[in-house]
Amino acid sequence: MSSRRNFLQKTVMGLAGSAIVPVLGKAAIGSETSPGSAAQEPLNIGVAGYTFVKFNVEQSIAMMKRIGVTNLSLKEFHLPLNSSDEKIAEVLGKFKAAGINIYAVGVIYMKTKEAVDQAFQYAKKVGVDLIVGVPNYDLIEYSETQVKATGIKLAIHNHGPEDKLYPAPKDVYDRIKNMDPKMGMCIDVGHAVRAGTAPEKAIKEYKDRLFDLHIKDVTLAAKDGKAIEMGRGVINYPAVVQALYKVKFTGMCSIEFEKDMGDPMPGIAESIGYFRGIVAAERN
Amino acid sequence: MSSRRNFLQKTVMGLAGSAIVPVLGKAAIGSETSPGSAAQEPLNIGVAGYTFVKFNVEQSIAMMKRIGVTNLSLKEFHLPLNSSDEKIAEVLGKFKAAGINIYAVGVIYMKTKEAVDQAFQYAKKVGVDLIVGVPNYDLIEYSETQVKATGIKLAIHNHGPEDKLYPAPKDVYDRIKNMDPKMGMCIDVGHAVRAGTAPEKAIKEYKDRLFDLHIKDVTLAAKDGKAIEMGRGVINYPAVVQALYKVKFTGMCSIEFEKDMGDPMPGIAESIGYFRGIVAAERN
Repeated sequence: MSSRRNFLQKTVMGLAGSAIVPVLGKAAIGSETSPGSAAQEPLNIGVAGYTFVKFNVEQSIAMMKRIGVTNLSLKEFHLPLNSSDEKIAEVLGKFKAAGINIYAVGVIYMKTKEAVDQAFQYAKKVGVDLIVGVPNYDLIEYSETQVKATGIKLAIHNHGPEDKLYPAPKDVYDRIKNMDPKMGMCIDVGHAVRAGTAPEKAIKEYKDRLFDLHIKDVTLAAKDGKAIEMGRGVINYPAVVQALYKVKFTGMCSIEFEKDMGDPMPGIAESIGYFRGIVAAERN
Repeated sequence: MSSRRNFLQKTVMGLAGSAIVPVLGKAAIGSETSPGSAAQEPLNIGVAGYTFVKFNVEQSIAMMKRIGVTNLSLKEFHLPLNSSDEKIAEVLGKFKAAGINIYAVGVIYMKTKEAVDQAFQYAKKVGVDLIVGVPNYDLIEYSETQVKATGIKLAIHNHGPEDKLYPAPKDVYDRIKNMDPKMGMCIDVGHAVRAGTAPEKAIKEYKDRLFDLHIKDVTLAAKDGKAIEMGRGVINYPAVVQALYKVKFTGMCSIEFEKDMGDPMPGIAESIGYFRGIVAAERN
């Protein structure tokens, strides 16, 4: 909506500024507003694996089916990083049979060269082209060599004020902005807000490196902000969705729900519903 | 969004039509768009008691707390119509202690004069000023006498193609439109759609008699449409919400969730989230 409204506001302003106005017919108005709406397909929705930290693969699949979401960023508690080929095939088989698309692995922490190597080998075996990861600063360059060698993208994840490496999206962006185009970021919307970053601005500012998004809500735009159902917290999700449409984001918007983690189904469902509702309204 | 967009479209059209245009400053644009946004408070959300047909009062309260909804239209399986004063006090006490506002009773079917009398006595004892009900045709006039005698409003509920009395909202409206202003309707959005009525149009057309709303989604805009999580069915909820804002609806939007009725929590949560998301986007 916003883009069309802004367009019309600008149009009115423009007309007003020129004082004498060309005659616009209804068709002209229609055609000027339609590109925005044509581009507004539903955003891609997924789940960040950490959401299911207390559940096994079968339970996680059941929850994903319940909310009708089929994209998952796989976390290592469902498939350890050092898994055998047989184990990888077994776990991937379960997800595939359930119609679930593993689109990324992560969040993977990389504190050594070996950990970087392992992460890229793991991603290759799992068959994804995206790692959501957290390399130590001194491993960013080495990670880039692995990105170049494998063609697998790395999306570095921000983790809020407590994070010594990447508290805010800017802390990621400034370190990768001049690197290989497959070096990018996963903006965690909740942690970004806790670190004082407006996600709708970060999405626009870092759009060229934005590969993945973790969606959630928080009670406060401060360090002490706690996880809460989306729509009940402080994050302006209509603005986030408008920003995603504005930059034509084609990645996943993956919920990472961190409240009631032992009984998360209602909160996940409410959050996914909320996000879908905003997307529906913005597309309408 | 729509109202502002339409306003701006009309403005542009108007400017275009007049060919010579008065100079509008930014402030003028701002003030012309602000009345719409100022009026857009969140809509009131509730639950239609039938949602909890398989659960007792305590379980129902727990589910309402989980979704953060505090308004309930009380159904008789939670408090029978012939309850003693003690029983009424006991059940109402439980809801009150949980912070839940019983805003209506119903849906109550009224096939005899005695049933009409009972419904109004019940509403009075429960302390609500709204009955959602289904009187036989030949009891509509008698119901009006009770409405006048008690000051309690009657909202007649449409129930889809199978309903011999009130399949569509129009079947209600045409019968009460010239009666006492406290004779009105509860538009059931899902049943309306199954009966071929676009709810966003019905809301505008029948706004003067619209006291209550049952929200839900259905898989088809036809008799065979089945209940489904809001946002996954065929109903255009952005249009419904825009219509509610357009007519300045001040009643309750109460979810009546009729899928997975033995395990409805995820579907209720997703639906409520979806509706809240649309409301947030339309207000933004």
